[in-house]
Amino acid sequence: MEKRKILIQLDTDAHASVFDRVVAIDAGVDELFTYAGVEPEQVAGLVHGAIFTRHPRDLKRTAIFVGGSDVAAAEVLVAKALEAMIPAFGLRVSILLDANGANTTAAAAVRVAAKHLSLDGRRALVLGGTGPVGQRVGLLLALQGADVRLASRKLDRAEVAAEAIRARAPNASITAVAVAGDADLAAASEGCQLIIAAGAAGVVLLPASARAACKGLKVVIDLNAVPPLGVEGVGVTDAAKEYDEVICYGAIGVGGTKMKLHRAAVAKLFESNDQVMDAEQVYALGEGL
Amino acid sequence: MEKRKILIQLDTDAHASVFDRVVAIDAGVDELFTYAGVEPEQVAGLVHGAIFTRHPRDLKRTAIFVGGSDVAAAEVLVAKALEAMIPAFGLRVSILLDANGANTTAAAAVRVAAKHLSLDGRRALVLGGTGPVGQRVGLLLALQGADVRLASRKLDRAEVAAEAIRARAPNASITAVAVAGDADLAAASEGCQLIIAAGAAGVVLLPASARAACKGLKVVIDLNAVPPLGVEGVGVTDAAKEYDEVICYGAIGVGGTKMKLHRAAVAKLFESNDQVMDAEQVYALGEGL
Amino acid sequence: MEKRKILIQLDTDAHASVFDRVVAIDAGVDELFTYAGVEPEQVAGLVHGAIFTRHPRDLKRTAIFVGGSDVAAAEVLVAKALEAMIPAFGLRVSILLDANGANTTAAAAVRVAAKHLSLDGRRALVLGGTGPVGQRVGLLLALQGADVRLASRKLDRAEVAAEAIRARAPNASITAVAVAGDADLAAASEGCQLIIAAGAAGVVLLPASARAACKGLKVVIDLNAVPPLGVEGVGVTDAAKEYDEVICYGAIGVGGTKMKLHRAAVAKLFESNDQVMDAEQVYALGEGL
Repeated sequence: MEKRKILIQLDTDAHASVFDRVVAIDAGVDELFTYAGVEPEQVAGLVHGAIFTRHPRDLKRTAIFVGGSDVAAAEVLVAKALEAMIPAFGLRVSILLDANGANTTAAAAVRVAAKHLSLDGRRALVLGGTGPVGQRVGLLLALQGADVRLASRKLDRAEVAAEAIRARAPNASITAVAVAGDADLAAASEGCQLIIAAGAAGVVLLPASARAACKGLKVVIDLNAVPPLGVEGVGVTDAAKEYDEVICYGAIGVGGTKMKLHRAAVAKLFESNDQVMDAEQVYALGEGL
Repeated sequence: MEKRKILIQLDTDAHASVFDRVVAIDAGVDELFTYAGVEPEQVAGLVHGAIFTRHPRDLKRTAIFVGGSDVAAAEVLVAKALEAMIPAFGLRVSILLDANGANTTAAAAVRVAAKHLSLDGRRALVLGGTGPVGQRVGLLLALQGADVRLASRKLDRAEVAAEAIRARAPNASITAVAVAGDADLAAASEGCQLIIAAGAAGVVLLPASARAACKGLKVVIDLNAVPPLGVEGVGVTDAAKEYDEVICYGAIGVGGTKMKLHRAAVAKLFESNDQVMDAEQVYALGEGL
Repeated sequence: MEKRKILIQLDTDAHASVFDRVVAIDAGVDELFTYAGVEPEQVAGLVHGAIFTRHPRDLKRTAIFVGGSDVAAAEVLVAKALEAMIPAFGLRVSILLDANGANTTAAAAVRVAAKHLSLDGRRALVLGGTGPVGQRVGLLLALQGADVRLASRKLDRAEVAAEAIRARAPNASITAVAVAGDADLAAASEGCQLIIAAGAAGVVLLPASARAACKGLKVVIDLNAVPPLGVEGVGVTDAAKEYDEVICYGAIGVGGTKMKLHRAAVAKLFESNDQVMDAEQVYALGEGL
């Protein structure tokens, strides 16, 4: 009989995410081992418990999910987990990072855009481009061949984020831009057919006037679910709704795709024991959905 | 295929109750998500994870159980959980409060009494009436039409508790009484056919002499399982045992009914996503047992 | 329908062992209730939740596993758990101690030795004999009739450990020996046909020269998996590998037997509700493997 599918949830928050747990169950996980408040130095011991308990041929039935509200802290846990594995002996398990839903949200946003627009060669603007979701949106757009403008209020921060993306996608066409006011925004959005707002909750990044002024704009996606929303005039539940011939999505409008990607990513973990799933791998799952 | 039944256990203690977990499993829960040491400000995030992960039509397969040894702290968690739900969009899940077993114990005591006595119009005395179990016993008796005397050592505390019951049951016939010694007890119990002792562990509330002096008494129930027991002369495992023609129950004697109500209440959570189960709702389940 | 098999994992570490959880699942446990950071004074409440929730005839479907990296702390939890049970009323559940894998490791080492050597009357040396694994190895060897030399760097510590073993096995033939250098080691190993090294990680206890000098040696087992290993010249994955006509095992070489014993011990818990499984009981399971 096949071993039960065990998912080990490593979460950096005081209480592990209910959201991630429900999705794991609905993705077909049999047993969920949940760890909250996980510190980097605790990861090796937990991972050893995962890789030393089943025969290598059965290790695809054990996997790790790293979550929590702090994406940077979760990335450290992933690095520690990979260090603790022993691939030379087949002693490893697959791992998925989706802290704060950053990977599934970014992948969903770019998937949704790609339904309406061929991304290759397209000019796209990412507002709030230096946060964990924004960076991943920029990365995924660049990997699809888009000509990406990554915006932040401060140019130096945008440059750092753009450089990090280039390190992951050497052929990326990506330009850091500073957007501190209306004039900056008009310049940054010029010629863009896609704008994705990935900023902090409750901050308007794209006023209605700026949207109207952007000629040639085809698709706008807002990933902020907390009012005031990131794109003025677009509703949080809007999904492919047209305003002035621009196709618009709100954060919840992208939610269905995000949930499908999240479940698919968890299910995918159990196909082999050698996967490291970050934004690119989650995005690739959208092909089959 | 139907979604697995997920119960989210929110517990205010450092370690979540094993008792509540075993009962949840035996009530047919498929997946138990256990959170210990839950603080009020953490509830909204946990509840959002519950309501945003499944389609509203499937939310009856997710539910919340609030427990722990501190009933007042648990009541705060219930209030926070209800605040975090979004019923206008169908985004809610059912919730059961049974901190310290208060609701299932109170409901079981009144159910057991009702097997031997029609409660409507009956005079009943609740000793230890200001604690979480005592208040719930008083409430349930009043809702069944009994003429309830709610006793405490201090009249003002009894008055506060009686007023709280009246707020939940406007037609309640309920009188606060102070019972600080034998004379008070004789006066309070006069004409009562039912006495339920719901006081603190290890405190005798009804001496044998007082019980014998109470003419017309038909049923006595003690809910204290730790010696010395609350009703002198009645054994902790007594169940419908007669002493001097009075039908008597000890705390464990009520336990079978309590366990059935507890399991039934957990199972009931998964029938719809809009239930808030407190003492009254748990009591109502006794109808079918 | 039979009740689901519930295993309550009490672990003294900040995060409960993933290792023990995976083994529990693979041993057929249906529901695992995991408690980390368990303190002695918290045990009674948890145990009461276990014994008061199911009918005594069903209590064999609930059991307790005590683990964590600190064997002494775990032994205190076991004692507290046994105190909290009420055997006179059939209100108890079976319990297994395997903190730090001490019992399954010791039992596996002695089982492995017994495959190659009749232990009765045999002279055996336990290096690192005062730690939790070493003491258990000494105990199990003594119970099989071996003439055991229990070694430590300090004689008084070895004496204390030997005395503890005699208390558990009154007919034990066990001698405490001090091994502080090469001469001590030569004296201690003289006439031994079996040497088991159960010392701390990364400490060489048996240099190659000492092994070669020990005439009549048949079997050597090292339980240290962290380099430098405990027995010089023996590999961590060696299993019944011969070096100079001595059959040798490294820590991982013993691992397969250890895992089988661990799973068998967990499965055995659910056969009755009155078992207390320590080294002896785990060793006995090896009979049928």
